[in-house]
Amino acid sequence: MAFVKLILQVPRSLFLANSIAVRRNVYCCARISETNVSDAVGKRRIIKGWVKALRNMKENVFIDVSDGSCSEHLQVVIPKSVKPSNLTYGSSISVEGDIAMGPNGRVELRAETISVVGECVVSDGYPFVPRKKYSQEYIRQYLHMRPRTNSFGSLLRIRDLATAAIGDHLRSRGFVGIHTPVLTSNDCEGAGEVFSVRPANEGLLKSMKKEGVSDEEAYFNTKVFLTVSGQLQLESVVRGLSKVFSFGPTFRAENSKSRLHLSEFYMIETEIAFTKNIEELAKEAELLLKSVTNYVFDKGASDLRIHGAPEPDWLHKTFDIISYDEAIKILEKNTDRLSLPLKYGESLSKEHELFLMHHTSGVPIFIVDFPKDSKPFYMKEASHDPTKAAAMDLLAPIVGELIGGSMREDNYDVLQSKLSSLTPNLDWYLELRKYGNVPSSGFGMGFERYLQTIMGIPNIKDTIPFPRWPHNCKF
Amino acid sequence: MAFVKLILQVPRSLFLANSIAVRRNVYCCARISETNVSDAVGKRRIIKGWVKALRNMKENVFIDVSDGSCSEHLQVVIPKSVKPSNLTYGSSISVEGDIAMGPNGRVELRAETISVVGECVVSDGYPFVPRKKYSQEYIRQYLHMRPRTNSFGSLLRIRDLATAAIGDHLRSRGFVGIHTPVLTSNDCEGAGEVFSVRPANEGLLKSMKKEGVSDEEAYFNTKVFLTVSGQLQLESVVRGLSKVFSFGPTFRAENSKSRLHLSEFYMIETEIAFTKNIEELAKEAELLLKSVTNYVFDKGASDLRIHGAPEPDWLHKTFDIISYDEAIKILEKNTDRLSLPLKYGESLSKEHELFLMHHTSGVPIFIVDFPKDSKPFYMKEASHDPTKAAAMDLLAPIVGELIGGSMREDNYDVLQSKLSSLTPNLDWYLELRKYGNVPSSGFGMGFERYLQTIMGIPNIKDTIPFPRWPHNCKF
Repeated sequence: MAFVKLILQVPRSLFLANSIAVRRNVYCCARISETNVSDAVGKRRIIKGWVKALRNMKENVFIDVSDGSCSEHLQVVIPKSVKPSNLTYGSSISVEGDIAMGPNGRVELRAETISVVGECVVSDGYPFVPRKKYSQEYIRQYLHMRPRTNSFGSLLRIRDLATAAIGDHLRSRGFVGIHTPVLTSNDCEGAGEVFSVRPANEGLLKSMKKEGVSDEEAYFNTKVFLTVSGQLQLESVVRGLSKVFSFGPTFRAENSKSRLHLSEFYMIETEIAFTKNIEELAKEAELLLKSVTNYVFDKGASDLRIHGAPEPDWLHKTFDIISYDEAIKILEKNTDRLSLPLKYGESLSKEHELFLMHHTSGVPIFIVDFPKDSKPFYMKEASHDPTKAAAMDLLAPIVGELIGGSMREDNYDVLQSKLSSLTPNLDWYLELRKYGNVPSSGFGMGFERYLQTIMGIPNIKDTIPFPRWPHNCKF
Repeated sequence: MAFVKLILQVPRSLFLANSIAVRRNVYCCARISETNVSDAVGKRRIIKGWVKALRNMKENVFIDVSDGSCSEHLQVVIPKSVKPSNLTYGSSISVEGDIAMGPNGRVELRAETISVVGECVVSDGYPFVPRKKYSQEYIRQYLHMRPRTNSFGSLLRIRDLATAAIGDHLRSRGFVGIHTPVLTSNDCEGAGEVFSVRPANEGLLKSMKKEGVSDEEAYFNTKVFLTVSGQLQLESVVRGLSKVFSFGPTFRAENSKSRLHLSEFYMIETEIAFTKNIEELAKEAELLLKSVTNYVFDKGASDLRIHGAPEPDWLHKTFDIISYDEAIKILEKNTDRLSLPLKYGESLSKEHELFLMHHTSGVPIFIVDFPKDSKPFYMKEASHDPTKAAAMDLLAPIVGELIGGSMREDNYDVLQSKLSSLTPNLDWYLELRKYGNVPSSGFGMGFERYLQTIMGIPNIKDTIPFPRWPHNCKF
């Protein structure tokens, strides 16, 4: 048994199961989310984190420490005798002591030993100084440091809470999550707003290139783009699993610097087989929005307080459904309050959408029955009106359109006649309708816009860790 | 109140809350996962799904129906009098009747009415025929139909179960999920194995191009690539949140057709601040692997049976840790059983990795202390040996390397000296070490390889809905 012998020659400390040092560390080193509670009083703890504030008093130094596990900071009381000289705002520390209830009823850690892990010399170019509030625009200049700020730390925790809640909710409704591809040879909506992709290595391209094929097509034998939507692929999978969703990055190569657009953003997309009408789909979308928001406001209360975000009133109200024609009528009656002209048949502008939100006092509203000509090839005609598409948009505060969905064209012949002129490469999509076909519908929700609307964040760039937009792709 | 009036004019059926039709539908239409259980016996149900098998008996037709909600099919008994003439294998149906216990103790639905939603004329080019087993290679030719097969339906459900379990486990360990960007201006590992990205629309490029800037840089003001790893960005975020992970698509522009490589694949990456040594990191990786696998085998038992995948023996064994030098010694003693030559200092080949797995009888093993020269710039030197990197690989059956991780170089000066010659554009990464710095470490696990190892799937292309590899990017 040569192998067993070899293993036995490995230093004892390398064996996890036997390593007392590792176990002790796991036992003693706690996170602030589990420490900053009255249950912990009387216990000994090692805390590691960053100094967020520092106050020199007569005999003690008080510091507020964050480790990013929650929005709360732990107050640490350090006798001046043990305070390291390089303990400053922004430095990382390791501190050991007992948890106690402070005189003001606040849990605190009474430090016996403390060491500075990494210094922070603010005057040496650190972009943040103590006790100063910064604008989001300022903080955004330092994307790599942004997660250290209280407000963006909170945003990241809420973003993750919502991510988990969306998956949990949809799975509880019987949806199966599908990783739809980022790389695609479809140019889904037919627009030119896509990014194209090829290997950076010219040598590789040359070695792979077949005769008569362009550089762009050399690697995959076809032009390849970054996905603008996983819908078409979900329509394939839904014909086996009945209810599916995807939640991943999508891309738009637009030259837009608006506060609502990113070049890379996240989208939740659902697809449901055997659906009868757009109202059924709207119901599913409304349920998702309310269920996830309810969860986020329940579990993320303290992080949401940092953003001053109150629970939305609409959580307990039913979302109405109006037709496009009715939305136009409302807007027509209020043209004196609108700067942009209104043209029947066109998409609503952001101003129009936000006016409707003002009109409903901020309660989201579904708009259905859009003029068919303004909508893409895959949408089905409304059963009661051949000039309309069986589509819906959900408008929400701050962002306007938050969710868009439709019944899909499931008639082979109708789809074929629409496709032939528009999109090559989509024979497979047509073929989905040929065997054991089903009616299906689905919606997509922009995840960053969702965070904007529930947290009241004006600029979408402040909802994603590393935003990409025209002329900006740092880090 | 003009608005209220308008809303009241909307047809009543458009109001979800009042729509009896919608409510009734939700009540009656059930999924097979909730129906194919003895609790449902005696209840009336509408089931919608696809015909997977059809047997004509004397008075009744028996069909097996799947709706993708679980691996089990529901047996439906149809009196010949109500059987539609176009009811065939592969067609989609809607069937209503009572749930009963069949004579063989199997739950069945006794159809009163049944309709074919979408026909399936197998002879008209449908790639699957009844009662035939197909190879994965055959099914892979029809990626858009693949989710309809029992085996791939099971794979997709297991994939989603594991996706959810990974998030749940890591969050329960205090990690915050971070969406690291797909588009990046870093070329992380310095290799040429990246895809580059630019808008497909030449007009847009022209309109955005600033003087002296190449086409490739026009949109973002910099060359932009598809990420090969979110590690560097996680190292930014971990300096605010202490424990973070990402789970998303990553890309490699390699010309590899191996059964273990894809051009687009999913990776779970973790980053942990204040870590002391590589063993602590290995412990976290081992815990993730066991916890998620345990959950998947608990909740996904019936889908795993379809793949003939038994619960791995290693679930209840400790993973050993051996050094690279020790691994080499084992291999050297067995050169007669290896076809590839062994050269000290180089990475292990797939054959070597799999031999080690054979050697441990399939129990995963960590290899640590790799020669430093074979490892990338961001890895820290092992504290006990300046010729070694504080890195680890976890080897697993079928795939060999499943997880790779390291302590990160956290010394500003050491990192600076490594960076200057190698990678421009990474000043921000260096700067992370300047203010409130912390030691950190992290690991990455290939998600598709994880599925291969627990499900015993030889080819990685059979673990992802729409695989992309050289010369293949369909759908």
